[in-house]
Amino acid sequence: MSISTTIIFRIEMDKQQASFGEVATAVNQAGGDIIAVDIIRSSKDITVRDLTVKLNVEVHSKVTNHIRSLAGVKLIHESDSTFLAHLGGKLQVTPKMPIKNREDLSKVYTPGVARVCMAIHEDPSKAFTLTVKRNTVAVITDGSAVLGLGNIGPEAAMPVMEGKAMLFKQFADVDAFPICLKTQDTEEIIQIIKSISPTFGGINLEDIASPRCFEIERRLQQELDIPVFHDDQHGTAVVILAGLLNALRLVGKSIDAIKVVVCGVGAAGTACIDMLLAAGIKQLIAVDKCGALVAGNTYDHPTLERIASITNPEKQEGTVSEVIKGADVFIGVSAPGVITIEDVKQMASDAIVFAMANPEPEIDPDLAEDHVRVLATGRSDYPNQINNVLCFPGIFRGALDCRAAEINEAMKLAAAKAIASIVTEEELNEQYIIPSIFNEKVVQQVRTAVIAAAIQTGIAKRIPPEFNRLDYTTYLSQ
Amino acid sequence: MSISTTIIFRIEMDKQQASFGEVATAVNQAGGDIIAVDIIRSSKDITVRDLTVKLNVEVHSKVTNHIRSLAGVKLIHESDSTFLAHLGGKLQVTPKMPIKNREDLSKVYTPGVARVCMAIHEDPSKAFTLTVKRNTVAVITDGSAVLGLGNIGPEAAMPVMEGKAMLFKQFADVDAFPICLKTQDTEEIIQIIKSISPTFGGINLEDIASPRCFEIERRLQQELDIPVFHDDQHGTAVVILAGLLNALRLVGKSIDAIKVVVCGVGAAGTACIDMLLAAGIKQLIAVDKCGALVAGNTYDHPTLERIASITNPEKQEGTVSEVIKGADVFIGVSAPGVITIEDVKQMASDAIVFAMANPEPEIDPDLAEDHVRVLATGRSDYPNQINNVLCFPGIFRGALDCRAAEINEAMKLAAAKAIASIVTEEELNEQYIIPSIFNEKVVQQVRTAVIAAAIQTGIAKRIPPEFNRLDYTTYLSQ
Repeated sequence: MSISTTIIFRIEMDKQQASFGEVATAVNQAGGDIIAVDIIRSSKDITVRDLTVKLNVEVHSKVTNHIRSLAGVKLIHESDSTFLAHLGGKLQVTPKMPIKNREDLSKVYTPGVARVCMAIHEDPSKAFTLTVKRNTVAVITDGSAVLGLGNIGPEAAMPVMEGKAMLFKQFADVDAFPICLKTQDTEEIIQIIKSISPTFGGINLEDIASPRCFEIERRLQQELDIPVFHDDQHGTAVVILAGLLNALRLVGKSIDAIKVVVCGVGAAGTACIDMLLAAGIKQLIAVDKCGALVAGNTYDHPTLERIASITNPEKQEGTVSEVIKGADVFIGVSAPGVITIEDVKQMASDAIVFAMANPEPEIDPDLAEDHVRVLATGRSDYPNQINNVLCFPGIFRGALDCRAAEINEAMKLAAAKAIASIVTEEELNEQYIIPSIFNEKVVQQVRTAVIAAAIQTGIAKRIPPEFNRLDYTTYLSQ
Repeated sequence: MSISTTIIFRIEMDKQQASFGEVATAVNQAGGDIIAVDIIRSSKDITVRDLTVKLNVEVHSKVTNHIRSLAGVKLIHESDSTFLAHLGGKLQVTPKMPIKNREDLSKVYTPGVARVCMAIHEDPSKAFTLTVKRNTVAVITDGSAVLGLGNIGPEAAMPVMEGKAMLFKQFADVDAFPICLKTQDTEEIIQIIKSISPTFGGINLEDIASPRCFEIERRLQQELDIPVFHDDQHGTAVVILAGLLNALRLVGKSIDAIKVVVCGVGAAGTACIDMLLAAGIKQLIAVDKCGALVAGNTYDHPTLERIASITNPEKQEGTVSEVIKGADVFIGVSAPGVITIEDVKQMASDAIVFAMANPEPEIDPDLAEDHVRVLATGRSDYPNQINNVLCFPGIFRGALDCRAAEINEAMKLAAAKAIASIVTEEELNEQYIIPSIFNEKVVQQVRTAVIAAAIQTGIAKRIPPEFNRLDYTTYLSQ
């Protein structure tokens, strides 16, 4: 996948020896696109200019070298806009009101604060109204499975967690704070998160390696009374289901009549399978490195055995190329290139392929395009991007607003349906099965659906006022 | 100590039966002070008004009852401004820049963020420039010794930690985040703080009971490469020393010639003793519940034995009333009423008394006033308030800006001198030995002094640009 950035090159040109035209040509030939030029200073002999150049990171050094090779041109320095955006971090923690004088101080700090402390001491549930717990989520990782980069550790994971926290605030006004743990021990991680939980109203687990992530999430959900949500699992599963619901609407197939192959039984794959079964899919075959999972076989990890036991009712054996025959839907959450064009050709008519491996999908989208009806990926440079940003802000907004003790299957299903419902009948087409992350309806509708589902399943500890006034079941009918 | 707040009473008055004058009289007689009146609605027979009333919390129910007792007056509801200020918590976590479009998103999140992650992975020290670590401090408590309220637990401690974080941001632009731990086990607390440390550039320990706090701070400082500072100990010690330096300036006594009695050898007392010795005091007697500490005796806790071994050179035995005889300075960090007027009268001429127990000092300030030259307390309703807010914002601002690995004795001494130096020769008097917390020079001068001391003692990992241009030793000469 091509990653582009913007570099500002500051160059000094000797007017006798070099022309700006030469510089522009050199940059363009190396693959850079000059999008702005600013003259910093100019004298009789010399000019200093800032060239803002958009380029793919792969050609960056080539552009630099082309500039350096020009006679009469000196490269003073260059700065990378992506790194500039990260200087000093991307978040700040700000007071909601200023402390202007001693009276303000004695209200928000000693001595006035003591009464608020004692009110919480007498009734700990008041922490949800009188502290940031009401609106604050921890974004927690151990740095073991960061993006596609692997086990890069807690410090290196911070920029991702900060980015996630930005998205929480911007899209759903949730205050999220990144916590990167310097341990990869399951029991330690569980104990630490439990110990720091009084500050938070929810826990978003992120980029924690499988299978450790399953145990951590399960135990925390059991032992804490606030929602714990591993976004790599459930966020992905919710958005895949949202896309699939719309793809099925488009091809006119019923969810309980289709055959689905899910390839990859890691964090995302497992959650995706659970979600698809909960949504009503009957014939689902899970495929891992060892081939199709079949109930009764022995596998490396209890998770694989659990998945085998609830899928593949016809007990089909074989490789992905074998079991994909006649499938209506292929969902890849695995690795680049695990299926071929020949495999896709074996699928049922109006085939639906979600190739989510990132940055390189399970099949090259350009090759697959002609042989499937609907294609979705995790990439932003193809249509139908399955992006978790569609899910986690709204799902936590809803869970916090109704003080749900957990994010259960009903709430996730409701979120998926809400996301799908934003694409109208008129808009729906092969290139557009999923709304844009910048569509403002997304968070609002996910929130509403999630709260309604939480109330209906009896886990909401607070009923937001608008749900008292209306029949909340209407929110679920969409 | 009288704690005042503002209550808004919404009342409905029957015009036939009641007059506003009666209501105002009733409120005043109960001890309330009406500071604003707003008419919410009015009809032929009825008016609804909001009465904003300033009162001490002790008389609150009396005011409520007086209002309720009036014929023709109905109290609709009342709201407490201190609780209103706490609704939903007092902090938010905000992005430094908005994500306006897909290009912004790919810069601060995937895929662009991956290059920043890898840069930190290759050189972890880059976390200090490319993440919030550069400017973020954790405010951590176990809820075991919150204000004077005792062991009220982590949830109830949150409002204090949030207030502290507000002060960090407002006074020193430090991003501080509250972490309240659901454990009071020393080893667990140490392990948890170490594990969450990658996010933070500093750790401010707060309201952790003694003696646990000593071990936690010592071990963390040893095992982490970021500053760890227990504010109840060192913040208090720094500000006491600042006040004492100015009190001595006023009475014209030299620090190495005075006799000092410190009463209370808990968290604050211990740090205060270490700080005073580091500042050059020779004759210091520490008094705990068991009387004056004397080297060679056996005590409950190793800390008491350590303090005994470095103080009381003349090995004076006895109660506080006995050893206070002839003392130039009494510093109480203990409990209400531990000394009497008779004790104070036994002190040397120009006696200096710091009675820091809160809310009730070691001696009633109104009684002591006539018998001492300088009196300081921890209270805001008497002159010379010894307030940690004078210290912690500037000391962390300095430590973060020079990436000090710790906050050492030299930095604390420099901070105390910087705070003292803000009160000029002309301003200095018995009622004014310490600047106001709202004096803007405080943070700036503490920061500068702290950085200079860190550079001089070789623990600064970064030299802020202005210290390259100037001879930093000039900062220390003040």
